[in-house]
Amino acid sequence: MSVRRLRVGVAGATGAVGAELLRLLVEREFPLDGPPRLLASARSVGTMLPCAAGPVPVEELHDEALRGLDLVFFSCGGERSRRFAEVARDGGAVVVDNSSAFRMDDAVPLVIPEINPEAVDGHRGIVAVPNCTTIVFLMAVAPLHRAAGLERAVVSSYQAASGAGAAALREYEGQIRAAAAGKPLRAEVLPRVLLGNVVPHVDRFLPDGSTKEERKLVEETRKILGDPGIGVAATCVRVPVARAHAVSAALELRDPLTPERAREILAATPGVVVVDGGDPPDYPTPLDVSGRCEVAVGRIREDASRPGGLLLWAVGDQLLKGAAWNALQIAELMIRRERL
Amino acid sequence: MSVRRLRVGVAGATGAVGAELLRLLVEREFPLDGPPRLLASARSVGTMLPCAAGPVPVEELHDEALRGLDLVFFSCGGERSRRFAEVARDGGAVVVDNSSAFRMDDAVPLVIPEINPEAVDGHRGIVAVPNCTTIVFLMAVAPLHRAAGLERAVVSSYQAASGAGAAALREYEGQIRAAAAGKPLRAEVLPRVLLGNVVPHVDRFLPDGSTKEERKLVEETRKILGDPGIGVAATCVRVPVARAHAVSAALELRDPLTPERAREILAATPGVVVVDGGDPPDYPTPLDVSGRCEVAVGRIREDASRPGGLLLWAVGDQLLKGAAWNALQIAELMIRRERL
Repeated sequence: MSVRRLRVGVAGATGAVGAELLRLLVEREFPLDGPPRLLASARSVGTMLPCAAGPVPVEELHDEALRGLDLVFFSCGGERSRRFAEVARDGGAVVVDNSSAFRMDDAVPLVIPEINPEAVDGHRGIVAVPNCTTIVFLMAVAPLHRAAGLERAVVSSYQAASGAGAAALREYEGQIRAAAAGKPLRAEVLPRVLLGNVVPHVDRFLPDGSTKEERKLVEETRKILGDPGIGVAATCVRVPVARAHAVSAALELRDPLTPERAREILAATPGVVVVDGGDPPDYPTPLDVSGRCEVAVGRIREDASRPGGLLLWAVGDQLLKGAAWNALQIAELMIRRERL
Repeated sequence: MSVRRLRVGVAGATGAVGAELLRLLVEREFPLDGPPRLLASARSVGTMLPCAAGPVPVEELHDEALRGLDLVFFSCGGERSRRFAEVARDGGAVVVDNSSAFRMDDAVPLVIPEINPEAVDGHRGIVAVPNCTTIVFLMAVAPLHRAAGLERAVVSSYQAASGAGAAALREYEGQIRAAAAGKPLRAEVLPRVLLGNVVPHVDRFLPDGSTKEERKLVEETRKILGDPGIGVAATCVRVPVARAHAVSAALELRDPLTPERAREILAATPGVVVVDGGDPPDYPTPLDVSGRCEVAVGRIREDASRPGGLLLWAVGDQLLKGAAWNALQIAELMIRRERL
């Protein structure tokens, strides 16, 4: 069978997720019809980015530039997705959107391919990639939910600087150099100095005192698992890590599930690796997981404070499984299911 | 009334907690009878440390050195406390112990002066300072427990390098210099590289897959609040912060308690400051709280996933309120209650 080749656009090509996406398109030998069209803001026009057959120039993201494409990945924030994603779709492309713009739209599937692949079938031109913390959390939790019925989860996150974009990562790295030189540390991109600190403020605050990031974790979990009754208590915290998000989660399950059985289930789940126990005891950390497409799960243990309680710790590279890799997996999934 | 002056010993004078204790003894004008006796391991003998009336030489910690004292602070680890605390007590001193050696001993009061001051009255020569994370957690939670009855808490911690001792802090600071110079990062004191990482491993692992730090948070909470029925699910994580521990906590309370009422209760609690809400929204971070004796609480909000649920974020300098300051407060409390 000959593979249909696709004209692909990458909106947000110069960002942290865009860079990973370009690398993965090559690595995965994605069926490109010519070099991808790289789109970004006006100030990046002319920048050459490495791609399949050689460097490709960046063009400005505008309506005309979105014509004649089969597939466009958006990774340039909610505002630009709201402005341009429907233009791309109306021009005939299928959009895979990394932003939060359409995630809670009933007409837009919100997809983690290992968890709810069938959801792509109903797409109407836009498919959304979930929030990066939600993906890391659900890669560990969805298989246990299927086995034992998740009723409630209490989640605290440990989120990397690059989750706030390439400029936030540069600011954090600059703080390391400043600290070593004995200079004062400044915060301009992130709300507080991140080096030597942890900051319970990711995305903007909502009137109820939670943040939008925390709200996403609640609502997206319910949409992806297809159960509006699941309770999620979330506290999202930025930590001085370059890349890879971690979550500490306390799960309340309907049916009993031993840590041993939970490990077996997770070890058999594609895209998940179990790093737990042994002598000396092992566990995943952001440094181990950076650059990897799998979500690693460890610290799996009984929660003695509640019947049906299970504690765990999950870590994933939020630029890969939390964004670029999940987006590319969605595109590959749509090809396999003949929805692209 | 004339104040009785006390002959004071400081075991572990050269450590991170010892240094804070020496500073606080001076600042608080503690009723010292002559300079404190500074005790440490043999390799520190002769080191001069700044104290009340000028530098004081460090002596070796051994049985003889513990004679003739009224009060000895121990901050040199569980092993040395187990070896020497009873020697000091049997020699006539009252011991305030910062280690975990005696905390769960029924004959030893475990005291946070703002929470269970009356517990010191029954001491038999040794009073224990709780684990630093437990103190930060309970300073925020005990007042809410009194008002609404804590049934269960799910806690994830964000613990500073200096909580593992001065050598761990030096290792973390060395990693900042190495990273800025483009050199590889090494971990010898802590179990993993800490800079740019978060590590769910504080103290040693127990057979059930939890760590001793997590176990302490469970057991010490029950002892201090005097209620063995309280459930605590704890995950303790080391983060790249120099000093000040933070905890994210989901509380399950017997009686309803609005965030507004919780803020009022905490704002009226000595030793607690509320840093929450406002425009732009404020919250405490370890960098803000380092060097302060109060525990700061913010992100107080309803937990919509459970009736009677309340979420909060508490931060405290674990070398001060989590150790040296709480120890000195215990000594001052015993003087006031004529138990020293």
